[in-house]
Amino acid sequence: MNNCNPSWEHYKRYCLPVAALKLSLDISKVSFEASDFEALKTQADDALIKMQALEKGAVANPDENRQVGHYWLRNPDLAPDEAVREQIVSALERIAACVRAIHEGAKRGAHGPFENLLVIGIGGSALGPQFVSKALQRPGEDPMQAFFFDNTDPDGMDQTLAQLRGQLGKTLAIVISKSGGTKETRNGMLEAKRAYETAGLSFAHHAVAITSEGSRLHRVACEDGWLEIFPMWDWVGGRTSELSAVGLLPAALQGIDIEAMLKGAKDCDEVTRQMDAQHNPAAWLAMMWHHCGQGKGDKAMVVLPYKDRLELFSRYLQQLVMESLGKSKDLDGTLVEQGIAVYGNKGSTDQHAYIQQLRDGRNDFFATFIEVLRDRDGASMELEPGVTSGDFLNGFFLGTRQALHENHRDSITLTIESVSARTVGILIALYERAVGLYASMIHINAYHQPGVEAGKLAAGQVIEWQVRILELLETHPNQPFDIEAMDAALGGHQVHETLYKICQHLAANPARRIRRMEGASHFEAEFSSVA
Amino acid sequence: MNNCNPSWEHYKRYCLPVAALKLSLDISKVSFEASDFEALKTQADDALIKMQALEKGAVANPDENRQVGHYWLRNPDLAPDEAVREQIVSALERIAACVRAIHEGAKRGAHGPFENLLVIGIGGSALGPQFVSKALQRPGEDPMQAFFFDNTDPDGMDQTLAQLRGQLGKTLAIVISKSGGTKETRNGMLEAKRAYETAGLSFAHHAVAITSEGSRLHRVACEDGWLEIFPMWDWVGGRTSELSAVGLLPAALQGIDIEAMLKGAKDCDEVTRQMDAQHNPAAWLAMMWHHCGQGKGDKAMVVLPYKDRLELFSRYLQQLVMESLGKSKDLDGTLVEQGIAVYGNKGSTDQHAYIQQLRDGRNDFFATFIEVLRDRDGASMELEPGVTSGDFLNGFFLGTRQALHENHRDSITLTIESVSARTVGILIALYERAVGLYASMIHINAYHQPGVEAGKLAAGQVIEWQVRILELLETHPNQPFDIEAMDAALGGHQVHETLYKICQHLAANPARRIRRMEGASHFEAEFSSVA
Repeated sequence: MNNCNPSWEHYKRYCLPVAALKLSLDISKVSFEASDFEALKTQADDALIKMQALEKGAVANPDENRQVGHYWLRNPDLAPDEAVREQIVSALERIAACVRAIHEGAKRGAHGPFENLLVIGIGGSALGPQFVSKALQRPGEDPMQAFFFDNTDPDGMDQTLAQLRGQLGKTLAIVISKSGGTKETRNGMLEAKRAYETAGLSFAHHAVAITSEGSRLHRVACEDGWLEIFPMWDWVGGRTSELSAVGLLPAALQGIDIEAMLKGAKDCDEVTRQMDAQHNPAAWLAMMWHHCGQGKGDKAMVVLPYKDRLELFSRYLQQLVMESLGKSKDLDGTLVEQGIAVYGNKGSTDQHAYIQQLRDGRNDFFATFIEVLRDRDGASMELEPGVTSGDFLNGFFLGTRQALHENHRDSITLTIESVSARTVGILIALYERAVGLYASMIHINAYHQPGVEAGKLAAGQVIEWQVRILELLETHPNQPFDIEAMDAALGGHQVHETLYKICQHLAANPARRIRRMEGASHFEAEFSSVA
Repeated sequence: MNNCNPSWEHYKRYCLPVAALKLSLDISKVSFEASDFEALKTQADDALIKMQALEKGAVANPDENRQVGHYWLRNPDLAPDEAVREQIVSALERIAACVRAIHEGAKRGAHGPFENLLVIGIGGSALGPQFVSKALQRPGEDPMQAFFFDNTDPDGMDQTLAQLRGQLGKTLAIVISKSGGTKETRNGMLEAKRAYETAGLSFAHHAVAITSEGSRLHRVACEDGWLEIFPMWDWVGGRTSELSAVGLLPAALQGIDIEAMLKGAKDCDEVTRQMDAQHNPAAWLAMMWHHCGQGKGDKAMVVLPYKDRLELFSRYLQQLVMESLGKSKDLDGTLVEQGIAVYGNKGSTDQHAYIQQLRDGRNDFFATFIEVLRDRDGASMELEPGVTSGDFLNGFFLGTRQALHENHRDSITLTIESVSARTVGILIALYERAVGLYASMIHINAYHQPGVEAGKLAAGQVIEWQVRILELLETHPNQPFDIEAMDAALGGHQVHETLYKICQHLAANPARRIRRMEGASHFEAEFSSVA
């Protein structure tokens, strides 16, 4: 056949099929010149060399003096020493044994074999388990159903507990905190504990911890005699912990084939360790992120999987990408204010929400389409002669991709056969690697998160002030204080606005017994403790 | 008291309490000068005048020659003529009667009173109902529980149907499509119909339609004798239809007080009709969007409600804001490529996902915090002396707001008492108004969506090609075609890549009986129909 079709030639050149993973990565709808590609490839090749050192155990997170070991989780033979290898293998064995004992009913709740799991965690200890749970659930068939406490919202916890009403005696709580000191998770644990106790159940007999050895959570779980404690290690970051016990235990309990998930990640690691960027899909991703955003994240990454099961993948990537790449300084300490914003839910649903802006409005994004070839288990009905609902899904994906391309909006397409434990493992590993490579290309540390402390410290201060305010008001029952009087009584120099916000919150919750009395103006309101 | 505290004075000046709505809007953490505020106010005052004309029935959507009437839905007395007023009032009465009949069991399914609703819709016909359902659910107490088909993903529909296994005889299907021709919704309806029939049930006896009179869906529902048909009108856009039958019927069936929701929206409309922008919270929002993004959407709107119930609000706003504002041309036809990107989930959860980037990384966003003062129904346990989980939620909100502010990241804070039917109505109306005002400030049509057609047309073409490919392959059973041969057989001039993508999808679904045979290279694969 002759090569008379330039767009077909372009597609074939810039669509990378990866037989070992049964996926393909298509960058033909990103506008670049062949010379751009070559320049990006040179940078990516360099990043691949640095990644090699990291995988061998170099301290890739210099600020925290930590190794970066999530790649070892799916191939323990790569661990830098035998002790680490042994830790990984023995944790996997313990997970398998625990899951077996629970599924067989040898380990069980007070009211029978465990049917539900309540995962208590936040951030890296929730997003991965949530993504995987939804991606691989089989409603009505899974041995256990997963519920989550992923915040410190009291009403949110009440709603989840209402869904579990009468079932806590068959519900396993899994408390996940790497540091063992995350307040939201501690709060969720205490609220859950109280719910179990209110139901006449021992929390310890229904609880498992996943945490670092010696953490506060570890101590509590030891002292109270919880069912099990699984390890976390300082060489695994929260956002890359899905393939440690954090993700594997909940997944296996739900009935997911975690060996296939690990194997998928391992196989993907092998492919993306390929030192020639030309054949490496993770390198292609990193190169396109760099090209689209000019190495500064100038365009947001809109993630559009055309498959309901993958709806939470963009939330998972929000953390993986934004927490890894959103850094103020580069590795030399130069101010760079890096990052890539990530958002999206699923197609074709999102077409009906904001494709209008993507096609016609600000050209401030690049799309990543995730195409899943398999429609469903079993055959589909024909809605029109020869056409199924899955054909429409495919048609909307292709049509949208084309409509964006025509209007010079860039898109990447990642194609997988189906959503399975294996492909979920592949997706996780592929993006972990791409993030690492991109970080290397822009010369930042992808493995720390120095910016999260400020908010936590300020929050701690708010809690301290609240304690002092309550003390003041309660030692002066019925005595009204406006904000300025309150500040003076507390010794002055408090931020008035914060005092006001704390009082406003307390007064809105009747059980706190703090009354608000309106003043001459809204902000001259007075607050008092009701005796 | 003396005014010795400049930050407190600044806060009081730029925090707008709205007593009638029990909310406040705080823009004190956006950096602007008093002179900026005055200039913005002048623009907003002008937008308020234009909004007045729109509410009186001017054709505010000139491209489609349509009135914009969503404000009449909650105050029918404002409708421009008696016929429209009467339509709104009678629809409300019919909704109330239908809901009563269903809750009392007078209208019931084949297997008993209706316990579930399956809402089939997409975009404007799903996002509002989903947001409201989650925001106001009371697990275990609601008279009916809501499920959704919001896509044409066959596997997604299978998962929802699995959750409803054995319960379809007590499940009311509500099919929502304004045009009555949306393919995803038509597909969902046909898939649902088949599931009912497979269960030995009449779909028509379990189905309600919400659609425009005379639409295809309207005809089907009439001919098949569905339980009810509720109206949609061309003067209500999909993305502002939550307070029409589209949102009200599912909400009322779930047990939500829709009168309170309507009253909240009506009261908010009255407040935000205030012609002096100085006292108008919707105007303040529009002014800040304009200021933060320099009137061009240069910064994304990150929506962070500190309340699990409001988790879907950002998705609702994604549509409302991005579909309304993401426009290529302004009202004079000048190319402007406008828009504001919207993303976010909930706090404090998102702090653990991407606050790192927000605080340290790219300063390409402004945050909107939504603070909910009421923690939960009933009292909370103390986790530390005097401190509850709600106090921590409040502390994390305040701490994060401060940490962003310290690093010169702008944020708006909207404070409401609690999440209730009334406040949900207020939130919807407030943002509808803010979007309309902002659109007016930047001189665009907020009420059309010309950019969504291109993708739909291209999708239709893909479906046509697929039909032709299947015809070709099936009339030549067992004869392999590579893509170039296929193109030639189809008369040439097809886009090879599209042919390839269609074949790849068909071959991945065994029931289609299309086989892929690998060729010399990946893209030289041949496809044939299995006889």
